[in-house]
Amino acid sequence: MALLFKSHLDDPEAWRRALLALEPDLDFRVWPETGARDEIEAALVWAPEPGDLARYPNLRLIASLGAGVDNILSDPDLPAEVPITRIIDPDLTRQMSEYALTQILRFHRRMDDYERQQRAGVWRVLAQPLTAERRVGILGLGVLGSDLARKLAALGFDVAGWSRTPKEIEGITGFTGEEGLEGFLTGTEILVCLLPLTPETEGILDKDLLAALPEGAYLVNCARGEHLIEKDLVAALDEGRLAGAALDVYRAEPLAPDHPFWAHPKVIVTPHCASVTTPASSAPQFLDNLKRARAGRAPSNLVDPSRGY
Amino acid sequence: MALLFKSHLDDPEAWRRALLALEPDLDFRVWPETGARDEIEAALVWAPEPGDLARYPNLRLIASLGAGVDNILSDPDLPAEVPITRIIDPDLTRQMSEYALTQILRFHRRMDDYERQQRAGVWRVLAQPLTAERRVGILGLGVLGSDLARKLAALGFDVAGWSRTPKEIEGITGFTGEEGLEGFLTGTEILVCLLPLTPETEGILDKDLLAALPEGAYLVNCARGEHLIEKDLVAALDEGRLAGAALDVYRAEPLAPDHPFWAHPKVIVTPHCASVTTPASSAPQFLDNLKRARAGRAPSNLVDPSRGY
Repeated sequence: MALLFKSHLDDPEAWRRALLALEPDLDFRVWPETGARDEIEAALVWAPEPGDLARYPNLRLIASLGAGVDNILSDPDLPAEVPITRIIDPDLTRQMSEYALTQILRFHRRMDDYERQQRAGVWRVLAQPLTAERRVGILGLGVLGSDLARKLAALGFDVAGWSRTPKEIEGITGFTGEEGLEGFLTGTEILVCLLPLTPETEGILDKDLLAALPEGAYLVNCARGEHLIEKDLVAALDEGRLAGAALDVYRAEPLAPDHPFWAHPKVIVTPHCASVTTPASSAPQFLDNLKRARAGRAPSNLVDPSRGY
Repeated sequence: MALLFKSHLDDPEAWRRALLALEPDLDFRVWPETGARDEIEAALVWAPEPGDLARYPNLRLIASLGAGVDNILSDPDLPAEVPITRIIDPDLTRQMSEYALTQILRFHRRMDDYERQQRAGVWRVLAQPLTAERRVGILGLGVLGSDLARKLAALGFDVAGWSRTPKEIEGITGFTGEEGLEGFLTGTEILVCLLPLTPETEGILDKDLLAALPEGAYLVNCARGEHLIEKDLVAALDEGRLAGAALDVYRAEPLAPDHPFWAHPKVIVTPHCASVTTPASSAPQFLDNLKRARAGRAPSNLVDPSRGY
């Protein structure tokens, strides 16, 4: 039996090395060179071709190469009976919190304003909001959001989180569901999106949501490009209602050369680099799940397709 | 008896309000309107005029408005018998660690490179050093340096510290004294200076020290401008040995309009804003020390002039 690998983002040779170091007999095949289709027992994938996963009759595990599975669940022909897993890796979480912290601290300490002053040769100490009074709001309190929330609280920030179902995290003000969203947004000066992409969260960062933030707020989106209505963000920045945005994800990646984000003075563009799966760190959990699937046991980090994560 | 206030950086009215809110009878005088000199019992100062503090016969407390006292000890006519205190304020410490973290994360996550890419419209994920393998080295493990060290270690960095006398901090690799400096520098990829300014540390960030860092290292100086030989830094950056520097302090402040730092593409200039004393937060410790001085007791946060801090 064999493993099928497919991703346009991840390096197959790095994964081959990491997996074979742990299981030397693994039959590792890189799409489209699948060999006999009935020999494929597991798929380790990012954004597989729609319809492709339905073509392996003996498939018993579909593993996403990332923390999100929207890249898999969007396939209308997905075989319903095969378990789907995602990577929940302490190192992925750590990378994501670190990226968000980097951008939050930059905005909090007004480094965008200081860089503008430097370009103009201006020496002036700017009013600095107190950390304890700086409200950072996190959309999504899953594994990623709750890790970031704890790290921000440890640094002394006033942290709030919004989640679909109630979550209790010490020191974090929690808001829940549709009815909690406005109260959450009204108090949020730096908004970080760490939601999973589902039909409910697609386009959530729109005109209305951005308008509910206080004047001069900042946005950090390191979840999925599809969370954001990009033209609504540009409008909010241009009208001066938002002070800045740091974006790692986009509706279309790579970002088109003529996209307005590139040259926008209030937008920081990074190329989907916030958190990158490292084969050495994530290979063990995939192999463990492969063993469980072979033994007919439930894998860890199992996705509920009806929930979307 | 009266209190004399003098600073070109701090707002006398904010201090007056904060002190009088706690001690309404305080006779608060702002230099040069000192009134009768023999009525001055305490001086709350930043960079007093050399020779001035010797002119108050009943002075029994000299309090620096900041964490450093080089601005006072540089006075050759300082009255030797009057105790000198400095501000050790959890909020000053927190601000300083936050500033350093902001700059360290920016360099660690290669935001300078990503900003260059953005300006050129380039979409490319850059190699990201692992946090656990990223060595941040802190010069000075006093109140400020050790707070930063702990926060960096909590975020997963490989942290080392260098101090005059041995310091034990859990999870931090310690180096001590002249003989430990080279080993400390050789392994440091991001160097942060948080030393007090003393005759021993003046000019410590020179050509030789910068040359001992590995190729591509970064410098963050948020201590004192006099720690750095500024032309040596420009040379190290221009020759490509150093990758970047974030500076908050300078030999002459405000930074002269024609200073090469302003326009240097690898230098971040901030206007001595890393950590600003807030009257409300620091007034209580000054008043407590004034009470102690009146009672003939030793004040807290007492400076040892022979050590320089």
